[in-house]
Formats: sequence, structure tokens, C-alpha cells
Amino acid sequence: MTIRAVQWSPENERCVRIIDQRLLPGEFVERDIGTVEEMADAIRTLAVRGAPAIGVAAAMAVACAAESQQADSSRNAALHAVRQAAATLRATRPTAVNLGWALDRMLARAERHAGDEASLGQAMRDEASLILAEDQAMCRAIGEHGVGLLHQGMRILTHCNAGALATSGMGTALAPVYLAHERGMALRVYACETRPLLQGARLTAWELSRAGVPVTLLADNMAASLMAAGRIDIVMVGADRIAANGDVANKIGTYGLAVLAHHHRIPFVVLAPWSTVDAATEAGAGIEIEQRDAGEVTEFAGVRTAPEGIAVNNPAFDITPGALVTHYVTDRGVQHAPFRIEVSSVELPPPA
Amino acid sequence: MTIRAVQWSPENERCVRIIDQRLLPGEFVERDIGTVEEMADAIRTLAVRGAPAIGVAAAMAVACAAESQQADSSRNAALHAVRQAAATLRATRPTAVNLGWALDRMLARAERHAGDEASLGQAMRDEASLILAEDQAMCRAIGEHGVGLLHQGMRILTHCNAGALATSGMGTALAPVYLAHERGMALRVYACETRPLLQGARLTAWELSRAGVPVTLLADNMAASLMAAGRIDIVMVGADRIAANGDVANKIGTYGLAVLAHHHRIPFVVLAPWSTVDAATEAGAGIEIEQRDAGEVTEFAGVRTAPEGIAVNNPAFDITPGALVTHYVTDRGVQHAPFRIEVSSVELPPPA
Repeated sequence: MTIRAVQWSPENERCVRIIDQRLLPGEFVERDIGTVEEMADAIRTLAVRGAPAIGVAAAMAVACAAESQQADSSRNAALHAVRQAAATLRATRPTAVNLGWALDRMLARAERHAGDEASLGQAMRDEASLILAEDQAMCRAIGEHGVGLLHQGMRILTHCNAGALATSGMGTALAPVYLAHERGMALRVYACETRPLLQGARLTAWELSRAGVPVTLLADNMAASLMAAGRIDIVMVGADRIAANGDVANKIGTYGLAVLAHHHRIPFVVLAPWSTVDAATEAGAGIEIEQRDAGEVTEFAGVRTAPEGIAVNNPAFDITPGALVTHYVTDRGVQHAPFRIEVSSVELPPPA
Repeated sequence: MTIRAVQWSPENERCVRIIDQRLLPGEFVERDIGTVEEMADAIRTLAVRGAPAIGVAAAMAVACAAESQQADSSRNAALHAVRQAAATLRATRPTAVNLGWALDRMLARAERHAGDEASLGQAMRDEASLILAEDQAMCRAIGEHGVGLLHQGMRILTHCNAGALATSGMGTALAPVYLAHERGMALRVYACETRPLLQGARLTAWELSRAGVPVTLLADNMAASLMAAGRIDIVMVGADRIAANGDVANKIGTYGLAVLAHHHRIPFVVLAPWSTVDAATEAGAGIEIEQRDAGEVTEFAGVRTAPEGIAVNNPAFDITPGALVTHYVTDRGVQHAPFRIEVSSVELPPPA
């Protein structure tokens, strides 16, 4: 696993190194980001994306801002800089849950910090490093729990990108794949291209092939015939939110794959951090679905692919009923359906 | 219905007028084609496409070639020109059934024609005009039979383009929609964009909106959530081949829609010319599925959207088992599943 979507820059002090995902798959460019404004821009423009990765990157940018305070500035001035950094970063993508969570955590640590401004910078770096390490451990825990579902020669269908590029570690849905691959298991991943933004083609196919995992790309509408031909053994997807009853909100197209997997009696596995479980939302019907810009469907690379003036349906997510999910894999363990929120009592896995 | 994908040119003698579908939806350009080479090029490059439309256009091009013979040429020379034209056109798209059928019919008429070269030209024009008229009547018959399945306010999901642009008439899958619209029924068509070549976005959305039929475009992976939300009342698709047992070969993605319709208890209707029924093929498993070029999935408008060196799955068609089809509509009538090849005894509809 050599892809690190977010890390402390090994070359530049007080910088966060990210992979610029806007340039993939054409170019692999890592960028060192030293200011809050640059990071806000990187998040807004999807240079860094994926809910866990955004949270980690924002926390690290806050730490860099605190560290960059003048040595002679007052403790209040340093705290003010942290608060301003958090506010700027929070406004970049208001719907990403992990972003707000990571920033709240940085702020809480700053507020209760009693030292001077120099040690506030250190405290912020410590907290951001902890968030980074926890994110990586979360990915590995999902991988360790999920790898038991994989066997030699399996063909895994996935959708969108819930891989290393979406986290600071080895990903969520793809974590078991990477662990199995490292351990010498022969696998093949079938990556749905994931219209309209093609995260499957641009990101998932890229990171898997870079890691040496055999990957086959397909248009979303080709999954059904692969399943009918017996060429898919398991479906593994991520989740943006899991309701208390096990309903899953994830990238548009996930629900259709769940119905198809059910029809073909193929296991349908949802892999996500435990933090994705939203106990306050009883069922999927309570999750609001964002409708996105029509241009994502009607244009590509500046070329118009549909006539002007037509209506466009472009929801970003859909809801998969828990009844169609055969396994939930979180950093807390594997749960067979039906999903019960009480799983929170399950023991945490040992650190890998 | 003002779209005529193939017609005799109203302005230039001995020319076939086509809509250049390569330029849609950006530009609406009609072209008058006067030579066999031009028509072969138009078919090869998909300026004219859709199995029925190709057959009609090729037959008409053969007639133009016969008519263009010098008045002093011998009967043998004229017959030779017809044979050469047919051979050139046949080689453009070897898998399209209607193309070979239409050319065979032109050749048979030429061979049995006993007149001089002038009347051979006339005979060829007569035969091509007959093929054109029959194609238009076929479309209207499918429309008349299928319109009974539609009701005020219905929301119809379709895939790819089985509309006016694919025939010389009002299309196959869309023929009932056009008839219902003409008769004042309020309908909305949901058009799947149909990756990788986007015939749904480029062609179906275009021809429906030009005809004034309300249309909503969606990416293929969005159909499932629309069905779950109760926003689709019926699915209507075309067919490239129907096996004797009712299995249907059609554009990739059709099978997935059939499974989804079945899961949501939505009627799934196949509309196609009776000539699409292939009595010699017992079941869908006997139909060979063409794998197309990887570049169709990995590139768009010259922009690479997937990494180099990965495998790509790009079948042009899939097979929908007859068990998932609720109605078959052909020019001979409506048949509820299960499909029986004996339907051939059904009476032909009256000319519209």
C-alpha cells in the first residue's frame, strides 16, 4: 500500500502533502500545502476528497496554522488563528460529516490547552497526528475484519471510490482487498466507472492498478450481465451514512447494484467507519438526498452530450434498504444482517 | 412526428436524405447522399444508425446507383452496378441483420427483372420505396399495438435509442409514445443516457424534446432509485434479436433494467419488428455478444478518463431472459409473456 492521499510532508515543515486527485488518472502529482486558504481550495475543488481524507487533511491544516504563529504572539492570538482556520475549512463542504467532527476535535483540544502559543502549536500537531493515526487504524481494522470474507480467486465488484484515495490509510471498501493482495491472495476487482463523475474509472481503477491489484473497468450498466455470467463473487461498497435500521446512503448506483446482487444471490457488503452509523436517523427515508448540477450529466470535458432544455435527474446518493445488505464491516467488526445498532458493544480489534 | 432519419431527397434527384446523427445533439444537419461510397461511409461512421434505418438507407442507395447508370449501358452493366453497390454496402456493418435482408431483397428483384437498364433503375427505386414504406408501416403498427399499454400521466423509462432516428418511421420502442403524444396524452419519458456511447443522451433525449415530448435524462445507475421512489410506471425498450424462447438481446444495460423492473413490479415491455424474432436461435445463450473497443469506456472527446493498462469490459449487448419480460409488442400484435413463436399466426394490423 504505497498510496498516501494525506500525510505530513516529509520535506517541508508545517506542510500537509496531498495527492492532487483532480489530475488523476492522467498525472500523479503530490502537493505540499502550507496555508489554510490553500487547503480550503484543495477541498473545495476536490484535489483532496473522500469524507475521511477531508477530515484528516483539515485537522492537519489547522495544526500547520497554529504552528505558523509568530513566537511572540499571545496565547489568545494563537487560539484565534486556530478558530479562524477551523471556520474557513468548515465552510468548504458543509455536508461532509467527518470534516466537522475533525475540526470540532481540534477546537476542543485547543480550548482546553493551558500552555503558551508554542506548545499550542505542538498540541495541535499532536491532535492532528492522532486523528491521522486513528483514520489509518480504522482503515486497517476494516481491512482485517473484512478480509475474512475474501478467498483465493474471488472477483469483487465495487462502485465509486472507497479506497486509499478517500482516506489517509488503505481505504474502507477496498481495505480488505489490499490486505488480501499483500498476503498473496489472487483477486480481481471489477470497478464500476460511476457516472456522472467517473470516480471508479479515474480513481479506483488508478489506485488498484498502481498497487498491482488486477482491475477491470466497466460502465455501470454492465454489472448485471457480469453477475448473470457468474463473473462476480461479492460486491463491496462504502457508505456515506448508515441509519439506525441498517439502511445505507451511498453514491448513486449503489442501490441498483444491491438489487442486482440480491437477484443473483451474491453477497452485498457495506464497509465503512463506525462513525458513519447515525443513531439519530431511524431509517434511510430520513436521509435527505442532494440533487446535483445538471451539467454533470449533460456535459463532459466541455462537450455537450445532451440537447439543451431537457430535464435532468442527478441525485448524488441513493438509499439501499438494510434488507439487501448481507454484511456490514466497520472498524468494530463484521455484522451479518440484520443490522443492530447495539453492535457498539463489540470489542475493538487489536491494533494491526 | 417530424423527424425523418431516412427519406428520398425532396430536392436532389437520385439522392437519399439522412439526418447526420454524428452531429447530434449539437447540430441538426440533413445530408443528401448520391453515391454508394458516401452511403457506405455514412453507415460505417454511424451518421445513419439503427438496424431498420440502415437497411432502408442501403436499399435506397442501391436504387440511386442503378438509376445513375448511363442510358447507353447494357442491362448487364446495370445489374453489375447493383451487385457491386450491394457488396460495398453489405461490408459496412456485417452484424446488422436488416442490412443483409434489405440488400438481398434488392438483389432478388434485380435478378428477376427482365427489362432494360432504364426500367431496372425504376424497379430498384420501386423496391426501395416499398422497403421504406414497409418500415414506416412497421413502426406505426408497433405504435398502434403498444399505445394500449399507456395511460394519461405515465412515466416511461427507456434505454438507448429505439426511436425515430433508428428507423425511417416513428421508431419501435418510442412509437407508442409518439402516437399517445399526438393524441394528447400527457407522458414523460425518462431516458437512460446509455453508456458508453450515450445514445440515450445524444439521440433519444434529442428526438423526444424536438417532438415536444417531456423528457428527463438520467445516468444509467440512477434508474433503480427512480423506480424505488415510484417514479417509473413502465419500461419500454427495443430489441436487436429475440430468440425462439423469448430471450432478448438488446443494448448493454437492458438486462439490469429488466431485473430492477421485476424487483419493483414494473411492466417491462420489449418493442421490435417481427423480423427481429430469430426462430433459428432457441435461447439467448446461443446469441454471440460482441465485445467492443476499450477506448469507448476509457476515453471521452479525446480525454482519457481511466488509467492506461487496465482491463476493460465492454460488451455491446446483453441478454434479458424471457421470464423478465411482461409484454412483447411487434408489428403483429401484443403478446403477454411467456413468448411463443407461434404468434406468427396473428393477423397483421390494418395499414395506419
